[in-house]
Amino acid sequence: MSNINNLLERRKKLLGPASLFYDEPLHLVKGEGVWVWDNDGKKYLDVYNNVPHVGHCDPTVVDAICNQLKKINIHTRYLHETILAYGERLIATLDKSLSRVFFVNSGSEANELAMRIVRKNTGGEGFIASNWAYHGNTKAVFDLATGFRDGKPGSKYVKGVALPDMYRLPDGVNENNVAEIYAAKIKDAINEFEAEGIKFAGMIFCSTFATEGILRMPDGFMGKALQYVRDAGGLYISDEVQGAFGRLGKMWGHQQYNIIPDIIITGKPMGNGHPIASVITKEKFADTFQEDGRYFNTFGGNPVSCAAGMAVLDVMEKEKLIENVNEVGAYIQMRLQNLLEKYDCIGDVRGSGLFFGLEMVKSKISKEHDGELTHKLINAMAKNGVLIRSTGPKKSVLKMRPPIIFSKDNADFLLDTLDKTLSGLIR
Amino acid sequence: MSNINNLLERRKKLLGPASLFYDEPLHLVKGEGVWVWDNDGKKYLDVYNNVPHVGHCDPTVVDAICNQLKKINIHTRYLHETILAYGERLIATLDKSLSRVFFVNSGSEANELAMRIVRKNTGGEGFIASNWAYHGNTKAVFDLATGFRDGKPGSKYVKGVALPDMYRLPDGVNENNVAEIYAAKIKDAINEFEAEGIKFAGMIFCSTFATEGILRMPDGFMGKALQYVRDAGGLYISDEVQGAFGRLGKMWGHQQYNIIPDIIITGKPMGNGHPIASVITKEKFADTFQEDGRYFNTFGGNPVSCAAGMAVLDVMEKEKLIENVNEVGAYIQMRLQNLLEKYDCIGDVRGSGLFFGLEMVKSKISKEHDGELTHKLINAMAKNGVLIRSTGPKKSVLKMRPPIIFSKDNADFLLDTLDKTLSGLIR
Repeated sequence: MSNINNLLERRKKLLGPASLFYDEPLHLVKGEGVWVWDNDGKKYLDVYNNVPHVGHCDPTVVDAICNQLKKINIHTRYLHETILAYGERLIATLDKSLSRVFFVNSGSEANELAMRIVRKNTGGEGFIASNWAYHGNTKAVFDLATGFRDGKPGSKYVKGVALPDMYRLPDGVNENNVAEIYAAKIKDAINEFEAEGIKFAGMIFCSTFATEGILRMPDGFMGKALQYVRDAGGLYISDEVQGAFGRLGKMWGHQQYNIIPDIIITGKPMGNGHPIASVITKEKFADTFQEDGRYFNTFGGNPVSCAAGMAVLDVMEKEKLIENVNEVGAYIQMRLQNLLEKYDCIGDVRGSGLFFGLEMVKSKISKEHDGELTHKLINAMAKNGVLIRSTGPKKSVLKMRPPIIFSKDNADFLLDTLDKTLSGLIR
Repeated sequence: MSNINNLLERRKKLLGPASLFYDEPLHLVKGEGVWVWDNDGKKYLDVYNNVPHVGHCDPTVVDAICNQLKKINIHTRYLHETILAYGERLIATLDKSLSRVFFVNSGSEANELAMRIVRKNTGGEGFIASNWAYHGNTKAVFDLATGFRDGKPGSKYVKGVALPDMYRLPDGVNENNVAEIYAAKIKDAINEFEAEGIKFAGMIFCSTFATEGILRMPDGFMGKALQYVRDAGGLYISDEVQGAFGRLGKMWGHQQYNIIPDIIITGKPMGNGHPIASVITKEKFADTFQEDGRYFNTFGGNPVSCAAGMAVLDVMEKEKLIENVNEVGAYIQMRLQNLLEKYDCIGDVRGSGLFFGLEMVKSKISKEHDGELTHKLINAMAKNGVLIRSTGPKKSVLKMRPPIIFSKDNADFLLDTLDKTLSGLIR
């Protein structure tokens, strides 16, 4: 503990109020697969970190990075083979209209670039996001962060729209009319921009609606929403920083909704922790964007980053990890349903694939959010050797999103620990 | 060549008009120290790439990255030792008022964050940049890119000011009055913002004025300029993406001007090619910025990036590279002076440390920029096995910026090749 206190003190001086997880912060020093270890040798099952997508310190990824680092690491104004092979492999998994790739270093950079492409192609400036969104930390992207401002956008160029929460549909809304009612809110936002003299540019959603509480959109909603956006001359950006690379059971997050976005952005899991992200779009949008000048990014698409990305795809293929996501994900959903039946404080089961959660409530009847219990639970889970976190507007949704090599045994350990920890907490 | 054509074709399909260096693009596959090799085994002296700061594929840096990759690579909401040790080591080389560090992934992200810190601390939105600037590719930062818009800023929140070019001072301006005359232009821009009802936020310059043509500011100019900025309640951001880590002969670029910036941003050379960048500022600015919420960056400050950064500092110290920059830099300046005397088409010698250039002109009397000769020269140099590029508003300044392990022998090879290539070109 004296070591922890020393780190905390130095950290406060150097990094100020930078955020830390858990009431008793962890000092992690080792990772392997789905496991991490702290400095005292205590082992934790990592059910939170999606960045080490195919597992902490995956040897195939580590070797790919190290091998390329020893050859050459340089920017993309020279020719490389790897950037092409990797980009070609990515777009081969997408609708063939999505054929152009830009490589960048982070989800924030990717969303920045996506927004620049949308502005240039539409001549518009107004963006629609959800009313509990987060897409990154640069100025234009952080203006979208309604989730960091109690539902309010950061500038007049952003409007936040309510999304359907199927667990808490308002009076008069049901499964049959929910898609149209909520899609109409997008149409309303477009009209508001027009009334305010701001030309509409486009819409951006997280493909797994994570910050919003891991929501699943009702059938038909996404299709109708995109229709309104396109009818108004706007473009749709699918932010797949969290929902791509098999996370939700398909290669890409948007594929669960039977839509084709105009732009897809990726990030976090792409290089298993190595900073790489991308923007994928249609040829005409990429060309129009670059009419005034070519986009360049010093680190973006360097051969080491691309080797990391390639290795992640190799591991996913070799270990059939998307199949694993579906198999283990289905097993987890079944066990989560059992917990839902057992506990009055669990209101809803969320998610798909290996991105799942539980909505914690004061009671099944009140459906009142229980952020306090959630907070206690995630801290008690850490003490019991399992890392999870919370999300949603009231931080009352357990957020579980492990490396996609997660096995049924891992799932049992998680869910047994959750069961035990929760019964201990509610006595 | 068929291989090159194949790469070019695939690249055009996947990356569109993404920029490439040289009329005959290079396919580089290997790097070591100051040397790179193309796919045909041809060897080039790299006098352009500052990102591999301590040399291509430096083994100390490669080992540091690989060792950490095998242990753990995770975000900063858990405690780590390396981020603290690295940050502490960085700020120990700066004025002690600059004590807070944010780690990010690129210079663009760093400038975005710096601008957010300035906006929040000043309540202002108006930024002054040079009238031939480039600071990165995100929306707010690209609005500063006057150098990509024929001297014009990208929004009403940016004003570009003319900087003194000591080689071409206008009538009535001389060494005695230049600092005051050009500093007054900054005061004018501040007044213009006020007249337009835009609150002034701050000023940002590249510490080595690279895009502007590798200009060196006259004595007293930077001090006067900062005084005007601060008198108006603004903050000064020193963009040291190109000018730090000993590049100009001192650890930091701003140290050549005897000023203390409010914010320093770094990038490119920091991790020898690994994507890492940072924002360093004063405690009060960092704290005020985070009053509304804590800044977080998923990849920023991860232990692998910090290990890369630490290794770069290790190599710099062990190999006494800042001393090398000064010694070899002085030798190069002497030899550049000889070339200046020999050729009528060389108008001026630029730079300091290992960031240097030559201003190419139609004649010493006309001082007319010769971008065409510069273009021919850099392409002929590549054919002759030396990589250099051009910069400046007319692309008429040779830009030379090798890894800082560059030796006198390397300098002789560069300058002999330059001499020979130039005499061949002008017949």
